[in-house]
Amino acid sequence: MTILENIRQPRDLKALSEPELGQLSEEIREFLVHAVARTGGHLGPNLGVVELTVALHRVFESPRDRILWDTGHQSYVHKLLTGRQDFSKLRGKGGLSGYPSREESEHDVIENSHASTALGWADGLAKARQVQGEKGHVVAVVGDGALTGGMAWEALNNIAAAKDRPLIVVVNDNERSYAPTIGGLANHLATLRTTDGYEKVLAWGKDVLLRTPVVGHTVYESLHGAKKGFKDAFAPQGMFEDLGLKYVGPIDGHDLRAVESALRRAKRFHGPVLVHCLTEKGRGYEPALAHEEDHFHTVGVMDPLTCAPLAPSGGPSWTSVFGDEIVRIGEERDDVVAITAAMLHPVGLGAFAERFPDRVWDVGIAEQHAAVSAAGLATGGLHPVVAVYATFLNRAFDQLLMDVALHRCGVTFVLDRAGVTGADGASHNGMWDMSVLQVVPGLRIAAPRDAEQLRAQLREAVAVDDAPTLVRFPKESVGPEIPAVGRVGGMDVLHRSDTTETPDVLLVAVGVMAPVCLQAAELLQARGIGCTVVDPRWVKPVDPALPGLAAGHRLVAVVEDNSRAAGVGSAVALALGDAEVDVPVRRFGIPEQFLAHAKRAEVLADIGLTPVEVAGRISASLAVLAVKEAGTEAGTEAGTVEEKDV
Amino acid sequence: MTILENIRQPRDLKALSEPELGQLSEEIREFLVHAVARTGGHLGPNLGVVELTVALHRVFESPRDRILWDTGHQSYVHKLLTGRQDFSKLRGKGGLSGYPSREESEHDVIENSHASTALGWADGLAKARQVQGEKGHVVAVVGDGALTGGMAWEALNNIAAAKDRPLIVVVNDNERSYAPTIGGLANHLATLRTTDGYEKVLAWGKDVLLRTPVVGHTVYESLHGAKKGFKDAFAPQGMFEDLGLKYVGPIDGHDLRAVESALRRAKRFHGPVLVHCLTEKGRGYEPALAHEEDHFHTVGVMDPLTCAPLAPSGGPSWTSVFGDEIVRIGEERDDVVAITAAMLHPVGLGAFAERFPDRVWDVGIAEQHAAVSAAGLATGGLHPVVAVYATFLNRAFDQLLMDVALHRCGVTFVLDRAGVTGADGASHNGMWDMSVLQVVPGLRIAAPRDAEQLRAQLREAVAVDDAPTLVRFPKESVGPEIPAVGRVGGMDVLHRSDTTETPDVLLVAVGVMAPVCLQAAELLQARGIGCTVVDPRWVKPVDPALPGLAAGHRLVAVVEDNSRAAGVGSAVALALGDAEVDVPVRRFGIPEQFLAHAKRAEVLADIGLTPVEVAGRISASLAVLAVKEAGTEAGTEAGTVEEKDV
Repeated sequence: MTILENIRQPRDLKALSEPELGQLSEEIREFLVHAVARTGGHLGPNLGVVELTVALHRVFESPRDRILWDTGHQSYVHKLLTGRQDFSKLRGKGGLSGYPSREESEHDVIENSHASTALGWADGLAKARQVQGEKGHVVAVVGDGALTGGMAWEALNNIAAAKDRPLIVVVNDNERSYAPTIGGLANHLATLRTTDGYEKVLAWGKDVLLRTPVVGHTVYESLHGAKKGFKDAFAPQGMFEDLGLKYVGPIDGHDLRAVESALRRAKRFHGPVLVHCLTEKGRGYEPALAHEEDHFHTVGVMDPLTCAPLAPSGGPSWTSVFGDEIVRIGEERDDVVAITAAMLHPVGLGAFAERFPDRVWDVGIAEQHAAVSAAGLATGGLHPVVAVYATFLNRAFDQLLMDVALHRCGVTFVLDRAGVTGADGASHNGMWDMSVLQVVPGLRIAAPRDAEQLRAQLREAVAVDDAPTLVRFPKESVGPEIPAVGRVGGMDVLHRSDTTETPDVLLVAVGVMAPVCLQAAELLQARGIGCTVVDPRWVKPVDPALPGLAAGHRLVAVVEDNSRAAGVGSAVALALGDAEVDVPVRRFGIPEQFLAHAKRAEVLADIGLTPVEVAGRISASLAVLAVKEAGTEAGTEAGTVEEKDV
Repeated sequence: MTILENIRQPRDLKALSEPELGQLSEEIREFLVHAVARTGGHLGPNLGVVELTVALHRVFESPRDRILWDTGHQSYVHKLLTGRQDFSKLRGKGGLSGYPSREESEHDVIENSHASTALGWADGLAKARQVQGEKGHVVAVVGDGALTGGMAWEALNNIAAAKDRPLIVVVNDNERSYAPTIGGLANHLATLRTTDGYEKVLAWGKDVLLRTPVVGHTVYESLHGAKKGFKDAFAPQGMFEDLGLKYVGPIDGHDLRAVESALRRAKRFHGPVLVHCLTEKGRGYEPALAHEEDHFHTVGVMDPLTCAPLAPSGGPSWTSVFGDEIVRIGEERDDVVAITAAMLHPVGLGAFAERFPDRVWDVGIAEQHAAVSAAGLATGGLHPVVAVYATFLNRAFDQLLMDVALHRCGVTFVLDRAGVTGADGASHNGMWDMSVLQVVPGLRIAAPRDAEQLRAQLREAVAVDDAPTLVRFPKESVGPEIPAVGRVGGMDVLHRSDTTETPDVLLVAVGVMAPVCLQAAELLQARGIGCTVVDPRWVKPVDPALPGLAAGHRLVAVVEDNSRAAGVGSAVALALGDAEVDVPVRRFGIPEQFLAHAKRAEVLADIGLTPVEVAGRISASLAVLAVKEAGTEAGTEAGTVEEKDV
């Protein structure tokens, strides 16, 4: 049995000797490489926090002490040390989540994978402890990249203000999130990183002093009292100290003893303290270290030795179609510029950045700034393309509305990973955008159904210079081209029942739901139900020709990979009502719930976004309508029974 | 004619002598006090920036140079100096906006009154200039309070990183926004504020040097070269310098010469620079200075000498009803705590803070942190009440969804200023919440119709400990109590037509739309149309009894002071469709547009949210339905004409 297998809970770590701890770290790294290669997942970030995580669980007592993982994709080691060593179905249906999960363990707190939240959570938890007079430490682990997010600043400002409220911020500084961290903060961290004079002065004695509890504490305290003077002499007054946080560091994050010692110092300090740990993303795994783009931030299923992908590739991705086309557009138009929020390559802007290095900006993990600076760029005469994952645009809602739309700025938002994303769980699904953004005056939203439409609609979007536009597409490979058989207004008709009679159902197929709708139409026709399938192309505003088209059907079904609440279905129903067209509308989409991790196809099946389910539900509705119509013709009113409750 | 009246454009300022400039400042203050007393508006902030604004327009050349006002409520002086001196209808229909407005002037850039945006706009504008090789300066004026917002941090991080991109940040530091600024940043600014050694050393020569352009420039540059050494000796290395911004300050913001001199230094610096100006909110007007709560941040119509209000008070405000009740709740429950984002008194938490000082936190202008720290507080065992203006909750959408709702935290959001707010214009209307938040799983939304309902629903909200709740109410005075005449499910029936026949219309009256609906029902009944008026009380989730109730009517009209798109009307339509109840739904609310400033009643009239308009539209819809039903009975299908376009 390995040492790792013997760790059932954090307290099992405390009895290990120094050589055993070294071996444990090696075992963990080997486990991670092989386990993640088998399922895919976050590799580089977890290899970087092995010693840090071991140290945290040796110094603190989770769950009484709360250890908060910002972003959460670096929590694999934490899982291994808190009783979760079955990684066989990691990120798959019924398997471990790729993020902390309260359902899995009492040691987990934050499930939200959006960055820069942990400090705010920590502030709240620490305040709750203070109000209730409870003991226990609150420790937030945050990457240097996540510190570029505004939420981190808002939290630090609050944390630093309360000198009497203990809270430990561990900065896991690997100089990057996906890509190298940028900005003034990154430069400042670089300065701090290279000033180890102070630590060296202290180093000779601190381990000895700290290992003898009573005496050590006293001696340490005197040393601590003199610290400010020491520090001024040997280290710069960093911005964290300016804000009012005690600064401990920089610490070599792979030197377990050094990390533990720093954490113990932080633990004894009765106020807000920041521990600056230097770590290496991909540590101990050569292929990750050699991978320049992102040190194997995430990997697919692969051979752990050769790193060759073992899952079949499904052809070009939506991302790459966008990435190629935006370069072509950039070549034609000098004024088109691009913005990414710390995800240059994942959103497909790598080639654009290489071709036009002066026309692309990585703003950090700062979606708010991506949107508001885009408003400034547009007002300054350029056309910015803001490329983000759909789920992260939630962070910039106010800026899209109040800065971009209110000022009628020509900014194009490109949402990758829209709809159900699957393996990354609840907080990565891009299932809100077409609902939340319905309220934005002037905004135009496109949901392309195939690669050709993506290219065409992207061009239509960047041609709009007096209002925001948005183009959204899903994760994974783009499917085959789906030709139109006709056009009504600006909408593509994808299918018309081969019948001279009035068709029964109008299926409004939003973007990639086109194949689902076409197959549902086939199933319905097999039952004698005539269908029209239309792709609105631009789902906001609703095409003026839609009510007229709908009026020729008995039922309208709107199918979208977006929240059923408030989405395209809602907009279609509103447009029909405004036109006094009262053809019943049924909305198909994602129900009002958070979706657990599983494959995209599994999730879609679970929530009924399949041809069989859509067709079944539509024919049931038609049956009810037929009964009601028969009832009305017979002179009775359906549904009046319940009215008597009034 | 006064000097002020002779200023038609910024360049008219340049010819003025020092005594004339002094007189101009006095005239501006006198104008402000009298003009704002006549209409109501922002007074304290504008009195504080008189010299700063004059200096900005003397040193820079707007609109070639872009001057950006963060939040914008301190732009009155800027308006006076850029050709806008008719304040007679300030904030009223057809009058000047209380914020910058591109429609009013080419000197205005940002209309969004939400704080902390100007630095992001400035970054975008400066980048656009760099890409296009254009000349001209970009100057952002931001309050110290607004620096506590995450957007400011995200922007500073980007601004500081580009050493070759000129951009001037003027921090208008009056130690407060509404209330004193809080947090680590505020403490740091306080430190900077008191270290004037460096400025004093430079003071003896700089004015002389700078007033002789050619020679002065050279001499100044040498001095500038030595600056780093000087600075280390006389001033602390502040966090702005740590980030990489050149720091100039602190400057007495009421010493026009000092401000101009600092701005000229900043203008000559070819990179990002921060000018730290100390100003006094309410400067020059004793009653404002003496006003402890917020130095007359905003005032109503008043006597400028006695400051007695001249507009009749309409009885207790919604805010005060909430403020009183939350104190009572706090007395009953130890675990109820409150959070404000820099608006303790405006949101009605003043009394709670006095009664329970250890159970309330002002987090700064940081709505994201308000929500995420609330998730931490709830997880720590407390029940936080987050009280914000409805429009500002947009900033915390992602946190409400991903931190509060995903983790099933019992957090109550209380939205003041929901619906149409009127005088503060487009960005202050709280018209998005009931649409945007429809997607949030588990969230419950209440819209009380009167004071009694507000008290009751607030108590129902804080009783929910495993999901977020939200209670929203409008600005201004609460109206008389509106009794229920019955109950269906959890809904209050407010009115039933006095008829034995099936009523024609179900009016779903959301919150304060109850009186509009009751009056519309009267008008409809006068035409022989039977009505039921129901207040759903909780609009999310839709009451399970609603579809049954709707089924007994020919038409459902949902009336809400919220966006028509995606709002309660959408949710009702979805619930009806899911229940196979296909009674036509008509949605009444705020159309998809930004609303210009005017009185609330004027805006409601303009957008058709009046009894007459609602009743008229409903009877028109009923007439169309009657025609269609007659057509169907006669064996023809309505609306099939358009279908031939397919």
